[in-house]
Amino acid sequence: MITSVSNQRVKRITALVQKSRLRSEQDVFVIEGEKMFLEAPTERILEVYVSEHADLVEKTRQKLDQLPTGVCETVTDEVFARMSDTRTPQGILCVIRQFHYDKKKLLSDQNALFVLLENLQDPGNLGTILRTAEGAGVTAVIMSRGTVDIYNPKTIRATMGSVYRVPFWYEEDLIAAMGEMRAAGIHIYAAHLRGDHSYTQEDYTGPTAFVIGNEGAGLTDACADAAGKYIRIPMKGQLESLNAGVATALLLYEADRQRNEWI
Amino acid sequence: MITSVSNQRVKRITALVQKSRLRSEQDVFVIEGEKMFLEAPTERILEVYVSEHADLVEKTRQKLDQLPTGVCETVTDEVFARMSDTRTPQGILCVIRQFHYDKKKLLSDQNALFVLLENLQDPGNLGTILRTAEGAGVTAVIMSRGTVDIYNPKTIRATMGSVYRVPFWYEEDLIAAMGEMRAAGIHIYAAHLRGDHSYTQEDYTGPTAFVIGNEGAGLTDACADAAGKYIRIPMKGQLESLNAGVATALLLYEADRQRNEWI
Repeated sequence: MITSVSNQRVKRITALVQKSRLRSEQDVFVIEGEKMFLEAPTERILEVYVSEHADLVEKTRQKLDQLPTGVCETVTDEVFARMSDTRTPQGILCVIRQFHYDKKKLLSDQNALFVLLENLQDPGNLGTILRTAEGAGVTAVIMSRGTVDIYNPKTIRATMGSVYRVPFWYEEDLIAAMGEMRAAGIHIYAAHLRGDHSYTQEDYTGPTAFVIGNEGAGLTDACADAAGKYIRIPMKGQLESLNAGVATALLLYEADRQRNEWI
Repeated sequence: MITSVSNQRVKRITALVQKSRLRSEQDVFVIEGEKMFLEAPTERILEVYVSEHADLVEKTRQKLDQLPTGVCETVTDEVFARMSDTRTPQGILCVIRQFHYDKKKLLSDQNALFVLLENLQDPGNLGTILRTAEGAGVTAVIMSRGTVDIYNPKTIRATMGSVYRVPFWYEEDLIAAMGEMRAAGIHIYAAHLRGDHSYTQEDYTGPTAFVIGNEGAGLTDACADAAGKYIRIPMKGQLESLNAGVATALLLYEADRQRNEWI
């Protein structure tokens, strides 16, 4: 049992929770709570920390028993509170290996549905978008380098487990990647005030991507230009825009509706 | 100019920012930032505090000049930082009179579209729902008493100004209110896993209300029973539910699409 908050492993976890650069260098991320532990792919679980007086459900105990020896470590409640990112620690925390997807394969899917995010900044928004993307059957979420780290603990929480199941990656040059996608026959739609058509007026049954901009600034001109078409989400009142997660959800579910004909 | 953080007015603002009960007793709320100031109905602005070195736009200066004498007070940057709820204070903060709407009149609108919220807990979700509600032309947002305070600073920020424009109120007994709404001919739909039909299969052109439950627990059985119909939002993958703000947006925009035929 780890009993000291100055233990090297405790310090390492605290740093991993806080620093995107360290997570990237070590190719890992940290998740908290029983739900996130239970949904984690077992082969990706590298370390597990359980607080001394954690009140865990039977399912969690069973999954813990199946892990290789040495993976799980008990820590005092005080140590756990130090490692945890939340105000009400849930008693279990894991180090998970990061995901690396086969971009080429995913991009060549003829029924593909992509979300492209340019410089999204709010971790909660990004997490919600991953969650909605799973619900709408998205092929992958592709992010500009300037987008918030998807392994940020707040993002992870907001995904409700979708981070394990929806493919995603970052692009150094999103504009160039969009050019390649268009050349490969993927239709890219930008949600934009300049759109002539409402988003329900286009056909999304072919390979489709929606590009969503930063919460405050919207899409850069370069990114908007790189999309093939502009679409508009109608708005009443004096609103300038919808929340980025809401706009993404409306577009994705319209595409899913058209593809599945569950109208 | 107020120069001391122990000034009584400073202490009062700090308390109003933090305490829902005080806001309710004094029938006011606090907003921050130039955007929220510029969109605020002038007749509701009771007090304005501007920090000494605030870099305000011309439009803000003009609106400040139109306010009655004594409404606007300059404070030192240190004092402003104390009053502010944000990490990067925007230099202007106002006390605004709370809203009280004519429920009877709004409920009798024959083209009404309502959102009913049962015990929603996340201030950001609530704010996003107000914002989406404005965009979809909602008549009013009606909340159970157990829902988070709509005048919470985080909610206010997330509304992006919609808090000024979308009618809303709290119901002591939401279930009873739903009974009255149904008796008045309003169709109430609950987003629920038990729903037989997908949400795009119902007709929302008559007076319509959607009821959305708590983020973690969903709708209580009593509230789900009080709705006339269950509808389902289709989900792929292993998702248990969508984010409450996302679910609300999908339902509201489907209703708006049917009503406005902008398909």
